[in-house]
Amino acid sequence: MDVNAFQQKVKSVQAGGQPMICTPLIGQTKEELFHEIEVLTEKKPDVIEWRADFFHHLHDKDQVIETLKGMVEKAKGIPFLFTIRSEKEGGERISLSESEKVSLLAELCSTQLVDAVDYELMHDVTHIQQVSQAAKRHGVTLIVSYHDFDRTPEVDRLVQLFVNAESVGADIAKIAVMPHSYDDALTLLSATSHAKKQLSIPVISMAMAEYGAFTRMIGGLFGSVMTFAVGKESSAPGQVAIQDLNNVLSIVFSKNK
Amino acid sequence: MDVNAFQQKVKSVQAGGQPMICTPLIGQTKEELFHEIEVLTEKKPDVIEWRADFFHHLHDKDQVIETLKGMVEKAKGIPFLFTIRSEKEGGERISLSESEKVSLLAELCSTQLVDAVDYELMHDVTHIQQVSQAAKRHGVTLIVSYHDFDRTPEVDRLVQLFVNAESVGADIAKIAVMPHSYDDALTLLSATSHAKKQLSIPVISMAMAEYGAFTRMIGGLFGSVMTFAVGKESSAPGQVAIQDLNNVLSIVFSKNK
Repeated sequence: MDVNAFQQKVKSVQAGGQPMICTPLIGQTKEELFHEIEVLTEKKPDVIEWRADFFHHLHDKDQVIETLKGMVEKAKGIPFLFTIRSEKEGGERISLSESEKVSLLAELCSTQLVDAVDYELMHDVTHIQQVSQAAKRHGVTLIVSYHDFDRTPEVDRLVQLFVNAESVGADIAKIAVMPHSYDDALTLLSATSHAKKQLSIPVISMAMAEYGAFTRMIGGLFGSVMTFAVGKESSAPGQVAIQDLNNVLSIVFSKNK
Repeated sequence: MDVNAFQQKVKSVQAGGQPMICTPLIGQTKEELFHEIEVLTEKKPDVIEWRADFFHHLHDKDQVIETLKGMVEKAKGIPFLFTIRSEKEGGERISLSESEKVSLLAELCSTQLVDAVDYELMHDVTHIQQVSQAAKRHGVTLIVSYHDFDRTPEVDRLVQLFVNAESVGADIAKIAVMPHSYDDALTLLSATSHAKKQLSIPVISMAMAEYGAFTRMIGGLFGSVMTFAVGKESSAPGQVAIQDLNNVLSIVFSKNK
């Protein structure tokens, strides 16, 4: 398996390509996930994110690895992003402690079944660094993410969060916010544009829900290298169907060659 | 002919519909225009703008009216916007004096062949008011427009220009700017959003060329009631093909019902 598939795609986006489309897997069982992955793979996303916080057997490391292995085989070379989104930032309730989560992420990096892992900026720096070290050791990309499901912080605060993500060891910094107006969504785009200039790592950003849906379509113009689309089922509010997103991106980015 | 067709469409946009798509006619002769209108009408734009500054017989009022009459017949009910864009704001060189232009616009309003006319904010207030009075008398919509082909003014300045357009008698205020970055295009969107809240008339706005093309797709979210697309040939930089724009709008606005 080519562990650099994800990073290679990021580089081609940075060279002027359209942003990668990532579709989430949110099945609760191996059977659901295997069905989901077959539906998704046909839609040819650039990246598949396993939102493992939805998985009912997350506490059983062997089941996680076995399920992941089965999905990777079915995904025919599409890179995998592994994410356990915490409940505080929009994820499902899970039974693992933070230490157990970190050790699962580290072990998954060592299997090299995943190309990228997501871990949140709000966690203890020690934990972030443990994940970062495991990721680096095995050539896995670490996305350090921040989600605000309540509101959209000011531009300066958002830029600071992007900077913080880089300073704790992110390979990519990701921010998602909840806008209460289209103007809030402009704030997110403006912050993304600033962050792109200030950081030496790539960024991913989006404003969620109704007022933010359009940022999933044009965020790439402001520096966001990846956007999340509905493959089979949505994992966050405002996600657009992958076919629709593909159509829009091909038009938005054809004006920018 | 229903002189309110244009205003009716504006109202349905303001009630939450997707923005109107307007395609320009830029033929130089009656024959070219008749051919263009046939191609355009098949593409079903919401509005057709005759950019009459391209017309080689603009000095001949009878030819203008006869040509317009022919086009209106071929357009099968699609509302007409009549525009003589001045050279200073991106138009073609014409032989009419400003007074002759004003009297042509006034006469066209009286024929009721057009639903809307465009006249620029930079002109003498006396001239603007003459056009405004003729338009009001005959139930024609007056778009007062401002174009900056060099740069993007600051938000406050843009809002002031929108306000000025309303105060000189516009039924709709339109602003087009030239961005030198995607951030400039955000400035235009932000100003549009402010203007929408401050004005009691509808607004139209866009940022042009490469950095602004996306504003032609999402400007409606910020209050712009109309966007310009390429029907047969483009009349300003950054215009998108009508089919592409239709596809994008149907996706952008399906998230906002």
